[in-house]
Amino acid sequence: MTELSFYIAMVGTVAFASSAVLSLAEKRADLFAASVIGILTAIGGGTVRDIVLDVPVFWASDLSYVWVALGTTVVTFYAYSIFQRRTLPRLFLYVDAFATSMFAIQATYKVWDLEFGLPIAPVLLGVISAFGGGIIRDVLLERPTMLMSRDLYAVPVVLGCICFTLILTYAWEYRIWGYIACIIMIFVIRSAAIRWNLRVPNWATMGYARASPDAGK
Amino acid sequence: MTELSFYIAMVGTVAFASSAVLSLAEKRADLFAASVIGILTAIGGGTVRDIVLDVPVFWASDLSYVWVALGTTVVTFYAYSIFQRRTLPRLFLYVDAFATSMFAIQATYKVWDLEFGLPIAPVLLGVISAFGGGIIRDVLLERPTMLMSRDLYAVPVVLGCICFTLILTYAWEYRIWGYIACIIMIFVIRSAAIRWNLRVPNWATMGYARASPDAGK
Amino acid sequence: MTELSFYIAMVGTVAFASSAVLSLAEKRADLFAASVIGILTAIGGGTVRDIVLDVPVFWASDLSYVWVALGTTVVTFYAYSIFQRRTLPRLFLYVDAFATSMFAIQATYKVWDLEFGLPIAPVLLGVISAFGGGIIRDVLLERPTMLMSRDLYAVPVVLGCICFTLILTYAWEYRIWGYIACIIMIFVIRSAAIRWNLRVPNWATMGYARASPDAGK
Repeated sequence: MTELSFYIAMVGTVAFASSAVLSLAEKRADLFAASVIGILTAIGGGTVRDIVLDVPVFWASDLSYVWVALGTTVVTFYAYSIFQRRTLPRLFLYVDAFATSMFAIQATYKVWDLEFGLPIAPVLLGVISAFGGGIIRDVLLERPTMLMSRDLYAVPVVLGCICFTLILTYAWEYRIWGYIACIIMIFVIRSAAIRWNLRVPNWATMGYARASPDAGK
Repeated sequence: MTELSFYIAMVGTVAFASSAVLSLAEKRADLFAASVIGILTAIGGGTVRDIVLDVPVFWASDLSYVWVALGTTVVTFYAYSIFQRRTLPRLFLYVDAFATSMFAIQATYKVWDLEFGLPIAPVLLGVISAFGGGIIRDVLLERPTMLMSRDLYAVPVVLGCICFTLILTYAWEYRIWGYIACIIMIFVIRSAAIRWNLRVPNWATMGYARASPDAGK
Repeated sequence: MTELSFYIAMVGTVAFASSAVLSLAEKRADLFAASVIGILTAIGGGTVRDIVLDVPVFWASDLSYVWVALGTTVVTFYAYSIFQRRTLPRLFLYVDAFATSMFAIQATYKVWDLEFGLPIAPVLLGVISAFGGGIIRDVLLERPTMLMSRDLYAVPVVLGCICFTLILTYAWEYRIWGYIACIIMIFVIRSAAIRWNLRVPNWATMGYARASPDAGK
């Protein structure tokens, strides 16, 4: 399980570092700035999680996360031009969704395993770990944080973390399948939202009755 | 005193969670995003304080803060439409001021009680705890942080934290009354600033002599 | 060496607090808001570093950093009008570069000395400490973070931290000269970039071949 968690986090690191660099394309960043942002995006969410948990930051004892993030940044920096320019923003969304799914479920497992603030902290810190890196990236780049988009962005992550916490609590023997299934669930819902431009339905948002100018017509 | 501090923090939690959700109204957020932002706003400032103090985060051992923040978010999400739309932004300002007052004084007491960096750290961390949640909310929502508004925003909080630190140091026997009085003081000054649109006088801001185009006329 | 490190950090504190206040000039801030922002800018980067290292924050045991930041804020607040208004933004850039250089190398030394995540963490946390305060300042003031400017901003800091880490590892006996030399190196490169408006050459940025509208002409 720990090993699975390690590989999942590694794949998430690669995905988040490359998503950060893809989002830098239009900013004409240099390799040094790209490396700083790539690494901070990849390890930021987990670092915030570990600081809140008051455990040593995960990359202190195993620098492979940082090296992998650095390597991914360099490769993406030089290789990104092989992508069609038009596909880049879309590709970035999928890669970001992939990393988000992985970090959410991996953090939920870590917090649950430490028996920290059960049952709500695994969900809360899962969400923070998943969005932390992306929020750091968006703040550094002055992009709108994705959390506020009307897309189905927060919904699948919160649902996935809740599901996995329920599995860990009530069906511990299926935890490995649950681990993988919850990651896939988050990624599939989020990908569907990107692909078909799904949005949170109006009746589920604040101010449905009055806030929108054409509501009630 | 610890009990008083607990209830004060609970009221502050309710106030901050609802202020966060009120500020979300125009963004058409869904309930999941609102919950994340409501909880982060309510516990964010105190979490930063506890991380700097290097003590376990306050909500780890007592999840009632998180549950109360979540409950407040849900209630505010569904109930906010009973308010006139025009009164919402103003109501938000008062609720925010209320939470800010409570968290400032409660944090000052906690830091002073831990004898951490006396005498300046209680004031500094009081201010950080008070503004931390609101700044997290404003950064996530990409609103201008209130800290930079010309309103009397930082002034009453800094004054209140200084007063309460002086009371704790020189009039320890009156600490309970001082606790309540300082909260009221911050809230009254801030409310007066909102109600009568008070602003920091020109001579007390930077660049009075030359920065304003009509200065010296 | 510890003493040298202390004085270097003090000078950096003065420089960062005053750079923060200089950047506030056009915002018409009052003294209270200026003090909060001056102190947070001065101690922010090092605080993040110490939290990640999981050591007590540096200013808890020695409040002189906070007092110096506060004093610098007050002096700058009242004295800044002696500067020509036109020179202010430029002066701010140099003072910011000076503080950045000092904090980068001082943090690199601290992390190396704790043998934390060698060899990459000293560089990474050096960069975080150097930029942390400025990023906090820019987020609070809603200014574009300098990290994303096309100026040579990240490049000299990353290079300086790498050089100093190499000196500490392979030439420990020259560490004091290396300490000073690396600070000067960062400051000189950054100052040259400000003075002659040097920018990262096009071929070293992402998207050279296609992203710029006139590339390939």
